[in-house]
Amino acid sequence: MKYYVGVDIGGTNTKIGILDEKFNILSDVSIETLSKKGAKDTFERIWNKILEISNNLEIKEKDIQGIGLGIPGPVKDNSIVTIAANFSWGNNFNAKKLMEEVTLKPVKVENDVRAIALGEHKFGAAKGYKNAIIIPIGTGIASGIILDNKVISGSLGCAGEFGHIVVDKNGEKCGCGLSGCLEKYVSATGLVNEYLKVSKNSFDKNITAHEIFIKYKKNEKLAIEIVNNFCDKLAYGISILLNVLNPEIIVLAGGVSKSSDIIIPKVKEYLNKYALSIALENIDIKSCELFDKAGIKGAASLIIN
Amino acid sequence: MKYYVGVDIGGTNTKIGILDEKFNILSDVSIETLSKKGAKDTFERIWNKILEISNNLEIKEKDIQGIGLGIPGPVKDNSIVTIAANFSWGNNFNAKKLMEEVTLKPVKVENDVRAIALGEHKFGAAKGYKNAIIIPIGTGIASGIILDNKVISGSLGCAGEFGHIVVDKNGEKCGCGLSGCLEKYVSATGLVNEYLKVSKNSFDKNITAHEIFIKYKKNEKLAIEIVNNFCDKLAYGISILLNVLNPEIIVLAGGVSKSSDIIIPKVKEYLNKYALSIALENIDIKSCELFDKAGIKGAASLIIN
Repeated sequence: MKYYVGVDIGGTNTKIGILDEKFNILSDVSIETLSKKGAKDTFERIWNKILEISNNLEIKEKDIQGIGLGIPGPVKDNSIVTIAANFSWGNNFNAKKLMEEVTLKPVKVENDVRAIALGEHKFGAAKGYKNAIIIPIGTGIASGIILDNKVISGSLGCAGEFGHIVVDKNGEKCGCGLSGCLEKYVSATGLVNEYLKVSKNSFDKNITAHEIFIKYKKNEKLAIEIVNNFCDKLAYGISILLNVLNPEIIVLAGGVSKSSDIIIPKVKEYLNKYALSIALENIDIKSCELFDKAGIKGAASLIIN
Repeated sequence: MKYYVGVDIGGTNTKIGILDEKFNILSDVSIETLSKKGAKDTFERIWNKILEISNNLEIKEKDIQGIGLGIPGPVKDNSIVTIAANFSWGNNFNAKKLMEEVTLKPVKVENDVRAIALGEHKFGAAKGYKNAIIIPIGTGIASGIILDNKVISGSLGCAGEFGHIVVDKNGEKCGCGLSGCLEKYVSATGLVNEYLKVSKNSFDKNITAHEIFIKYKKNEKLAIEIVNNFCDKLAYGISILLNVLNPEIIVLAGGVSKSSDIIIPKVKEYLNKYALSIALENIDIKSCELFDKAGIKGAASLIIN
């Protein structure tokens, strides 16, 4: 039997999954990333955990065909993280080379959002669609773009940075250096911030995005206003992707996509204000199917290709 | 010897060129499109003109390898114009099939903007760049997107409709049905309209975009304001393409690109407000090189592939 490993390296935790030939996840675990200990330390701990799970599953090391790594930041040539935005592992960090040295297995690396997109495209909500855009919405918002069944990386590996479209040039400063980025409004953080700007209720100070959607369902006026505005800006962002790339499907992923039942109908309504009618003609907008397994599956799929 | 034909069908005129194996244009002419006489009539007149030029060049009909057609509207599979936006030749008009019936030659069809993009990418300003976006600015504005050396069409053939990004949702109604589209401001027409909204001088009523750029060079205050605003909105539009697609080059084409010496430095300055610094790291912004020959050359190049 052949086995594949998918790893989804996050800022805090790293998810590791072992998959069989049919891409079933046989086992998956999460370990702390602890990136400050250095890339080699993190990669060695990942590999030790892979060996430990394999051992528990009675999988021989030689049957592991390779490892796919999803990692935050711009990734080029399935190898190099060009800019050290998330970890202090240096610019032009060759993650593929280091992981191959640690594991002696073939390794392919992809940006974490594109790994999620690959997962949903190969095994989830976007399966069978030639042109698909997967939009994870959590603490931030980004996109993984698949055109003609291939994921788009861009020249420096930063394609898909949809969250930094400026939607209000007089808006608040974003962590990226620009002002009024889509992400400042259309993300879990953005939704909460916008709510708290208007709420006068001190009980709300620790409110979550999920709770705002619950208030929306309870017909609370402020939540309705804030959620409508969130969906309007999301629709605006999506309209740009539709006009420019003319995909057949948009998949909402990430934590916020759990409220897709509220978001999708509103986004569809608002898209009529912003998107060309031809670009809307054949578009599906769906919620993701793989949730937090998309990154693992997408990363593992790099190895089969 | 082998010869290739490139045809650039426009609303009013159609350009026809005959190219040799090295893609030199041996001869090019323009005929009226007269689309209202029907597609068959237009295509037959194009073919007769091709035969006439070939004859003048002493090229035998059998040495013509095929014909590439650039045509306005969304084009799918190098064959079908999906929506009859520009000519009343019907939806899902199979231009390839009809032209092959008329000429008995292999025919490939592409959207006119994408044909220009192919021309500049294969033979002009974007030659050698893997990820390039060509932006013709004339009566409207659109984009031809090349990623990993392949032109992007989208699911219904309408990818690149960059001119219909809504930049002011309370703005004027656009011909496409939306309001405040980029094209309403960033096009020759848009520039003139914006100028006339503010000018109180009745001599200006027939002013052209070119004349506004001349006034800019003469340091006329109103022209400076209007041109700056034009470049700001263009930079905004380009920033979206950079953040989402991370290309290495943007090429400005079309009539307005004749003022690239004014436009490009300003766009570069304004891009800092809107584009991610990583997306700006390796970007070139250039003026086109092939001007009105880009469409013919790009269309002809379809046949060599």
